[in-house]
Amino acid sequence: MPSSARRIVFGAASSLDNYISGPDHAMDWIRWSDEAAEVMGRYWARFDTMLMGRKTYDFAVKSGQGEGFRGLKTYVVSRTLADGSGSGLEIIRENVAEAARALKSQEGRDICVMGGAELARSLFEADLIDELGFNIHPVLIGAGVPLFHRMSRQIDLKLKECRPFKNGCVYVAYEVLRRA
Amino acid sequence: MPSSARRIVFGAASSLDNYISGPDHAMDWIRWSDEAAEVMGRYWARFDTMLMGRKTYDFAVKSGQGEGFRGLKTYVVSRTLADGSGSGLEIIRENVAEAARALKSQEGRDICVMGGAELARSLFEADLIDELGFNIHPVLIGAGVPLFHRMSRQIDLKLKECRPFKNGCVYVAYEVLRRA
Repeated sequence: MPSSARRIVFGAASSLDNYISGPDHAMDWIRWSDEAAEVMGRYWARFDTMLMGRKTYDFAVKSGQGEGFRGLKTYVVSRTLADGSGSGLEIIRENVAEAARALKSQEGRDICVMGGAELARSLFEADLIDELGFNIHPVLIGAGVPLFHRMSRQIDLKLKECRPFKNGCVYVAYEVLRRA
Repeated sequence: MPSSARRIVFGAASSLDNYISGPDHAMDWIRWSDEAAEVMGRYWARFDTMLMGRKTYDFAVKSGQGEGFRGLKTYVVSRTLADGSGSGLEIIRENVAEAARALKSQEGRDICVMGGAELARSLFEADLIDELGFNIHPVLIGAGVPLFHRMSRQIDLKLKECRPFKNGCVYVAYEVLRRA
């Protein structure tokens, strides 16, 4: 497999009004289901590397899942986090696009981008994200941490999968259409 | 039919990142299709009344579709628009929630809310919206007119319909779950 086949995927559980968590990081709106478990099992199986922003990392640590995230090699983007903050953790201090491009050129399985609309924006704007996958929940949260921030350009997508769950969630997966 | 059966529906074509139009009201990302036409035909047939915000009205007038919108009785929410601005147009000057509640109590077919995240927010917060219907387009616009604004409370929804189109759009319809 050529190394260029390694893909960066931005995924999240989201509300219909595009939040990934509510006020004070509330996650009580998230609905679990056997159908979600099946899709998520398939989703996670393709990755060996994870990229996350510092706020997402802080939240993950607080909720007791900070280190060795699902056994993936984890990179946290932060100017302030101390080296050696978590075992198996690497810190990207600057130029996240360059770091992500370097990861992409290495051999390996796919790379997951967790949480972090700010991180996703940097990667989208550098044309480094290949796929999106969201589990859109049937709820308007009204406020919280947004899934997307304003971006400087339009990004065209191709729908790859759309699967409504019995519990009212809709899983959608897209491929990013590269600029010519 | 009891008048309480009259429902208020908030609907739009939207981007995956929740915009209803791009910078400078760009609508060039909207994809038409026979499937969308079928859904939209069914969608429009249920209404005899439309509510829109002043910005949406201005845009509709500019693009030549301002008066007698699809033959529906049209109400524009505006403090500044002059009386008699358009034939068959009524202007709601203040307390849009009260005006919408009064319309809802009248006999008639359903009421459509067009564009206007600001208008939708007022109606959501007053618990007056009954259904949502969005045609989610496979695109991230990055900036423009948002579909949702921040709201002061969470609104739970029930998925009624999810229909992926061949062109990559996903039509989703929800019912608003009333507070107990």
